[in-house]
Amino acid sequence: MKNKGQLIVLSGPSGCGKGTIIHSLLEQRQDTVLSVSMTTRQPRKGEVDGVHYFFVDRATFEKTIAEDGFLEYAEYNGNYYGTPLAPINRWLEEGKNVILEIEVQGAEKVMARCPEHMSIFLLVPSLVELERRLRNRGTETEEVVLNRLRLAREELQRSSHYQYVVLNDVVEEAVARINTLIEAENMRYSRMETTVMEVMKYVSTQ
Amino acid sequence: MKNKGQLIVLSGPSGCGKGTIIHSLLEQRQDTVLSVSMTTRQPRKGEVDGVHYFFVDRATFEKTIAEDGFLEYAEYNGNYYGTPLAPINRWLEEGKNVILEIEVQGAEKVMARCPEHMSIFLLVPSLVELERRLRNRGTETEEVVLNRLRLAREELQRSSHYQYVVLNDVVEEAVARINTLIEAENMRYSRMETTVMEVMKYVSTQ
Repeated sequence: MKNKGQLIVLSGPSGCGKGTIIHSLLEQRQDTVLSVSMTTRQPRKGEVDGVHYFFVDRATFEKTIAEDGFLEYAEYNGNYYGTPLAPINRWLEEGKNVILEIEVQGAEKVMARCPEHMSIFLLVPSLVELERRLRNRGTETEEVVLNRLRLAREELQRSSHYQYVVLNDVVEEAVARINTLIEAENMRYSRMETTVMEVMKYVSTQ
Repeated sequence: MKNKGQLIVLSGPSGCGKGTIIHSLLEQRQDTVLSVSMTTRQPRKGEVDGVHYFFVDRATFEKTIAEDGFLEYAEYNGNYYGTPLAPINRWLEEGKNVILEIEVQGAEKVMARCPEHMSIFLLVPSLVELERRLRNRGTETEEVVLNRLRLAREELQRSSHYQYVVLNDVVEEAVARINTLIEAENMRYSRMETTVMEVMKYVSTQ
């Protein structure tokens, strides 16, 4: 019997490098996929349906709400954003680990609803570094940078709600740390039970 | 502030290769030590006090019992055997991980008494293999081999009491798996809290 995949809740302040790390992790692990959100907003140039988002109309989104089909959802700037449950369950049943990249508030809803999950908070090495990264983008106004920093501090305060904290000092090392957590989780008794049962089947024939 | 070390409870059937694995793990990790038991039995040839056991007389052992100084103890064949608490606490405070190699019943007592621990059950790849290893020693009678196999099955049934199950198919891989578990444990929020606090100290000066 194949084990179900792991549901991995991953959060971290904006600018902490989540995207780069997830991309690198997915390249290394064929057994892991990234959850895709559903939204009613219009696709931007280059965004692909089913890859970046599932793009749907309001009627479809609201039907899914009515069917309790979201792990969590929110309305933001007049558009819905949500995490649909059906594809996640399908991947988990197939034995694939599913990464849920999600902001802190959404993560707390998911953790409350899914007892079987692993949660990781991605930590920037310092807020000095985060500020540097935000400023280096060159696209953010002073107000946006300061706002992001304040938000980052608020999010850091909620890192205690997560099981694990992964330091993102160097991308490859952060990815290795997440791999370590996935491997450790695979050694939990519940995931090794089938193996234990296999070993116990044998009775000495002597 | 330095984190306390991890208390690692390690069990597995007799003949599963615990000794070899622990020896290899300790060679690799300067941050990890093996707990030493206390006993009233006589030292055998080559056994060193403080290394293989703390050898004490009955009066000393019973004084330690009276002072609640054992994590667990038992009397066996007229001799006391126990796990003294004082050296373990000293190592943990120094930041060293302490491995407690202990049979299943003793392990359950320790787990009940020490909520902060990591527990690992070392799994033989098969009972066929365990039987082969026991017979290959050439020193055990048929009765002893069959008795060990029965005991191994009983112990396997209690592996569900452990957090993790580590398969011992190849020694180096089993050691790598235990290393993975130790590293994962070091990423728990409680062990990363100091780092999170360090990051949060910063306030933008701009």
